[in-house]
Amino acid sequence: MTVEALSPELETVVANAASATAILAATSPGARASALVAVADALEAAKPALVAIGMEETGLTEARLTGEVTRTAVQLRLFATTILDGSYLDARIDYADADFALGVRPDIRRTHIPVGPVINFSASNFPFAFSVMGGDSAAILAAGCPLIVKAHSGHPRLSDATAEVASAALAAAGMPAGTFQLIHGREAGVAVLKDPRIKAGSFTGSISVGRLLADIAASRPAPIPFFGELGSVNPVFITADVIAERATDIASGYLTSVAGSAGQLCTKPGFAFVPADSDLPAAIQAAAGEPSEHRLLDPRIARSYEERRTAILTAPGVRALVEGGIRFDEAGHGWATPTIVIVSLADFRASKEALVDEAFGPLSIVVETPVGTDLAALVREFFEGNLTGTLHISDAEGSGDSTNTNELRVLVNALSQQVGRVLFNGWPTGVAVTPAQQHGGPWPATTNDSSTSVGTAAITRFLRPVAYQSAPAAFLPEVLQDTNPLGVPQAIAPAGESKAWGSAARD
Amino acid sequence: MTVEALSPELETVVANAASATAILAATSPGARASALVAVADALEAAKPALVAIGMEETGLTEARLTGEVTRTAVQLRLFATTILDGSYLDARIDYADADFALGVRPDIRRTHIPVGPVINFSASNFPFAFSVMGGDSAAILAAGCPLIVKAHSGHPRLSDATAEVASAALAAAGMPAGTFQLIHGREAGVAVLKDPRIKAGSFTGSISVGRLLADIAASRPAPIPFFGELGSVNPVFITADVIAERATDIASGYLTSVAGSAGQLCTKPGFAFVPADSDLPAAIQAAAGEPSEHRLLDPRIARSYEERRTAILTAPGVRALVEGGIRFDEAGHGWATPTIVIVSLADFRASKEALVDEAFGPLSIVVETPVGTDLAALVREFFEGNLTGTLHISDAEGSGDSTNTNELRVLVNALSQQVGRVLFNGWPTGVAVTPAQQHGGPWPATTNDSSTSVGTAAITRFLRPVAYQSAPAAFLPEVLQDTNPLGVPQAIAPAGESKAWGSAARD
Repeated sequence: MTVEALSPELETVVANAASATAILAATSPGARASALVAVADALEAAKPALVAIGMEETGLTEARLTGEVTRTAVQLRLFATTILDGSYLDARIDYADADFALGVRPDIRRTHIPVGPVINFSASNFPFAFSVMGGDSAAILAAGCPLIVKAHSGHPRLSDATAEVASAALAAAGMPAGTFQLIHGREAGVAVLKDPRIKAGSFTGSISVGRLLADIAASRPAPIPFFGELGSVNPVFITADVIAERATDIASGYLTSVAGSAGQLCTKPGFAFVPADSDLPAAIQAAAGEPSEHRLLDPRIARSYEERRTAILTAPGVRALVEGGIRFDEAGHGWATPTIVIVSLADFRASKEALVDEAFGPLSIVVETPVGTDLAALVREFFEGNLTGTLHISDAEGSGDSTNTNELRVLVNALSQQVGRVLFNGWPTGVAVTPAQQHGGPWPATTNDSSTSVGTAAITRFLRPVAYQSAPAAFLPEVLQDTNPLGVPQAIAPAGESKAWGSAARD
Repeated sequence: MTVEALSPELETVVANAASATAILAATSPGARASALVAVADALEAAKPALVAIGMEETGLTEARLTGEVTRTAVQLRLFATTILDGSYLDARIDYADADFALGVRPDIRRTHIPVGPVINFSASNFPFAFSVMGGDSAAILAAGCPLIVKAHSGHPRLSDATAEVASAALAAAGMPAGTFQLIHGREAGVAVLKDPRIKAGSFTGSISVGRLLADIAASRPAPIPFFGELGSVNPVFITADVIAERATDIASGYLTSVAGSAGQLCTKPGFAFVPADSDLPAAIQAAAGEPSEHRLLDPRIARSYEERRTAILTAPGVRALVEGGIRFDEAGHGWATPTIVIVSLADFRASKEALVDEAFGPLSIVVETPVGTDLAALVREFFEGNLTGTLHISDAEGSGDSTNTNELRVLVNALSQQVGRVLFNGWPTGVAVTPAQQHGGPWPATTNDSSTSVGTAAITRFLRPVAYQSAPAAFLPEVLQDTNPLGVPQAIAPAGESKAWGSAARD
């Protein structure tokens, strides 16, 4: 790949980001935390105006978008507390040790520094929480990296409006020019991703586009990490015992999870495996009622969903449990109601190619499994990497007292090999933003499963470790100083404790 | 890329590794730690026999190889303590929280699990410490991943002998079949790297081969992380003040660091920037004495070194400070004595293309800088990513009381942007194996600068986070249980503390 010159406009953007790198890296944790809180406050103050634009551009409801602004603000504040806590820096201090197992050990101290400018490709389906000032952006800024956001084409005006609010708040909070910039257009995004001054990329979207961008990042003259969150079908396993206990609750929870945001969520449960001849299908039909129509994000997504829905409904052995549908308005927008289909395991296996892909919209597939089916084997047979895997089990099964517990443990183990989050008796949509959250999983759920794109652990994606050996205090970063002026956690290896490592040495 | 079928022999190897995955992941930390200690003990017991083979195959000295076995054993024991400590699992527990800023938060707990089978391409220049049972292998096994080592062609018999010792120790310690296997040949290594059952790769070697393998890992149908440690030239900056204080010590330390292991170390100081007209060049000449010849690892490396040495010596303005040389014996082996050359900054700049690349062998370049040179700018002008950057500064400069301190801080900052480890008043060779060590840096020092290949933090490369949501205790891994039977560090986010994150919310 040759490096092409950027357009004058993009050159300015990247140069601004590069210029901001050292200044931003040198900001105090307190200043950076305050800046994130200022952005959170500004977004909430601008909420009515922003939500109005978002409703026009995305078709998402006022309630959903209002909640999403709150979530976005909470994410920003959560990262502010993460910065102040400082444990994400993984500060380590190994004091000099004359008795080290391999001879004199020098004083070595290690922390993490921002990687430099990052480009974040924002998502269509979360116009706030995974967009301009969404989770990735919050993590990038919290890490101390200049941020260039490539706006999603689905909500360009909202992106501009959000950027205006955020830029003003960041500037007022004293962050340097070049801390945050917005660009539009896929070609512009690709050009920036190729620029040698850019040190990492993040993305939320489809497998095809994510793969394209990941390949570009990996094939640069100097490759960079690329954190793409792509596709997931989120299988759910429901036992006979739990259906006997609470079929109605499960049916309504399932429908709500499939229908929410018109099914345009990366954690929508795409498959539910249930024992054949249970009461659950009837409970799902009973719970369906009269669902309200929901506009899909854009005409392209709507047409693609219609196509997938038809392919699924016409696969051999597939029956509609909840018919649902999609109609198009004059503007070309698709309006959908949830579709739930049911198929036997044998027919599912026979139509694997047609059925196992993601259907981005309000559709889910119930697969009926015969008695004695090895569920763990099904996970390996049908699925690659996923963001989530879910079990619904009875109280007795959960307590460990059931004869099914061992088999379920095997299933949990199989799921944990292939997903980032294993849930019990809940639904994968509605991803909590917390320190322990894991939103990521093996390919094709993400391009890089060593990290998360939701929760505070997301900050580690934009950091790089640096060690200082025998550094005088005057040259050490504050987080590595003995006086620890910032009060961050420091893992200290005192002199002497390493003797044991060499204790069995025979020379 | 299409996935080709493996040869029957390699198919068995990969199938063995895949079969071992779940069993190995389920071993207790204590069992895995004991297995690593058993390998360490076995290697030390076999030291005389192994060192004898190593001397024949690599030309490295008995003292060096004996020390390297000790280092290898210490590394294995260090990872045993890392496993038992458990902090590398980064266990996080967020208790359910009815008052969470975004509504009810479920109980979420996150730990790390082994990624699965890993292939490690071993190095030529450390036939123990970065080879069959070297640092990468120790980290892979410690993480609980089945290990396939691709032997380096420079020491095939030593690789087989080491593998035999290690396999017996691992089996006796109860590790499952398929825990560790050795293969030979680059084609075999590439075929295994492409296999979908392999989940990560590691490598120590040249930029060209490292890039080739990294590209293969990234372009697989399911891409995997690839941790390559490649080339580094390790610039050193020496101030006028410190030369006035201790020129003789610096000269002899420099020569020792350049000459050690015939300069075939990735941390060899390739460049020393010194003020023009200082006493250091004379001190280097005085310290050189009568250096002993050292055989280079193999004829290919020797010829390549001879070529680089000639190109450097014939570049305009380059003078030999310590002439050194290389001669070839009848077997084609090259025997080298250290070469130190000196060049003005102006001539260095004029011959940048010829001079700035790594010379893998006992050669280093002294660059004389005029008074007032902006050293931080030199870092950016001449160097890409490096494993290390070093400063030699006077006591006054180190104390922060010197008028030079600010300029030196700028230099330290510039170095930390481009290297993994910044050293003061020492030499980059002799990398301590400790928790705070960082052996890695931006491209082309490594293919992935988010981690280290030396020190206990190396284990994180072979782990993947998994979260459990609302999991009954009967289904939680031990490290995430409230009773914490293994006594690992758990970062706990209690209910209630998150209220503040939403405190400024206006809805």
